[in-house]
Amino acid sequence: MTEVYVLGHNHPDTDAIGSAMSLAYLLNEMYNVKAIPVISQKPDIETRYALDYFKIPTPMVVRTVANKQIILVDHNEIAQSLADFENSEVLAIIDHHKLEIKTNKPICLFSEPVGATATIIYFKYKELGINIPEKIAGLMLSAIISDTLLLKGPTTTKKDYVAYQDLADISGVADADRYGTEMLKAGAVINNNMPEDFINGDVKDYFIQGKHIRIAQAYVTDIAPVLEKITDIKNEMNKHISKNYCDLFMFVITDILKINSMIVVLGDERAVVERAFNTKLAHDMCYQPGVVSRKKQIIPLLIKAFLAK
Amino acid sequence: MTEVYVLGHNHPDTDAIGSAMSLAYLLNEMYNVKAIPVISQKPDIETRYALDYFKIPTPMVVRTVANKQIILVDHNEIAQSLADFENSEVLAIIDHHKLEIKTNKPICLFSEPVGATATIIYFKYKELGINIPEKIAGLMLSAIISDTLLLKGPTTTKKDYVAYQDLADISGVADADRYGTEMLKAGAVINNNMPEDFINGDVKDYFIQGKHIRIAQAYVTDIAPVLEKITDIKNEMNKHISKNYCDLFMFVITDILKINSMIVVLGDERAVVERAFNTKLAHDMCYQPGVVSRKKQIIPLLIKAFLAK
Repeated sequence: MTEVYVLGHNHPDTDAIGSAMSLAYLLNEMYNVKAIPVISQKPDIETRYALDYFKIPTPMVVRTVANKQIILVDHNEIAQSLADFENSEVLAIIDHHKLEIKTNKPICLFSEPVGATATIIYFKYKELGINIPEKIAGLMLSAIISDTLLLKGPTTTKKDYVAYQDLADISGVADADRYGTEMLKAGAVINNNMPEDFINGDVKDYFIQGKHIRIAQAYVTDIAPVLEKITDIKNEMNKHISKNYCDLFMFVITDILKINSMIVVLGDERAVVERAFNTKLAHDMCYQPGVVSRKKQIIPLLIKAFLAK
Repeated sequence: MTEVYVLGHNHPDTDAIGSAMSLAYLLNEMYNVKAIPVISQKPDIETRYALDYFKIPTPMVVRTVANKQIILVDHNEIAQSLADFENSEVLAIIDHHKLEIKTNKPICLFSEPVGATATIIYFKYKELGINIPEKIAGLMLSAIISDTLLLKGPTTTKKDYVAYQDLADISGVADADRYGTEMLKAGAVINNNMPEDFINGDVKDYFIQGKHIRIAQAYVTDIAPVLEKITDIKNEMNKHISKNYCDLFMFVITDILKINSMIVVLGDERAVVERAFNTKLAHDMCYQPGVVSRKKQIIPLLIKAFLAK
């Protein structure tokens, strides 16, 4: 039987892992394949919470996908995948991010601007009439909660609402809103965390106009205590910059309850951020009310600002 | 109401036009938009036949999509679209070709390796429960017949079979196989055509490893008579090469009844074709039994040969 890896992005979050596991289950139900959900790093605290809650084993962590047949979920860009992705055969992609993809032949690609990749997968289950086991539904629910900040984030669509409601029912979670808040809080950065812990938790790399942009994001229930450690945070960011030749490093500290972010900005290209948000950095920082999504509220503005340069 | 152009690729074939018209109809039924099917050149003889048969007016021919909101069907690469595509806002893409796409934000992209884009759109109608008018069904049927050579081509999938059967029923065409043969014959190059007529009929450009490859394809019911004009054909091909700085020009003469092709090859990079097909060109030509699809049987081999260079 053909073995296929279903791979979430580097620094996997709950949507990356939930999408990999739920899509693998669907493929195994539907087709004569052995689909294996895989991730390139261990789950973070939030996903750990969801996996434990629904008693789901952690997917396999792999360091290579070379010579494998793979399906990408929740990402499509090589910069966010295992480095040897190009030595594998990509069969399909399911994602909700901007696209940067080049293939040698036609493949399956389903991309929709919805809040979570798990939402797209939920509607595939529905379309194909496949029953979702309670546990998988719980993990998909968690993925949607995570990516949409409990349906409060700006990327949330009607489809996410529908999927959330349906998956809450299927999973048997008594109070999904309450479960969601608990999960987000569990994943929110704990005050006694070290700066490197949360900077390295959810890091994404982008290449825009030849520049290397790294954006880390941490979800907190209160921004203020994090700022007490700003000197250590900046030191950690500068380590990233020099080690990885970043032209720009943004660290987005997001208040998951108030839906606001403080963004710390370092690197040679920091002026681009000022242009993108039409603001002035103060102490290398800017406060952005309502901004919580890299994909929808940061990256498009950065690209525009780079192009207008 | 928002106006959205639904655009097929340059040198539109029956699938490009059928997909543009059927998707525009679907969007107008479903959403509060004014979706307008558009093409960048006039329909060819085959599509003309289908439009006349089902009494469908020709879609609008446009020279620009600048500052428009657009949806691409049956293509995704800028090389196959209107040159000012990059000054428009691409909302969505439905396609069945290899992918080469970069966006600033998440968009809808539905790509599947099926025989025709119209097949993907047919399943969207089914999924959404929208009735397809007879005429539109007839045009979608024609699109599938065209791209799969009446389900005989190598890109044909089970989904194309299902869509073909269903659309034949909905369209009310008494004998779809017979209609299909007549349509393909009508579109097949007529013997007294001039070389420039058929070389310019269905031309696609590709950029592989920085090289400009142009592949023209003509569908005939008999290859031999075309070869009588080989000197004129090569002259016409050389004009293309010098005018458009092509590194490689392949003219694929496809026998739609026997499902074979004679490929005429000119340009500095002609050795790549010999490596790709593991053959030697004789008189700048090679005969390829069973080869009828640029997308599935030519381009992937060319890319491999270029990369192995």
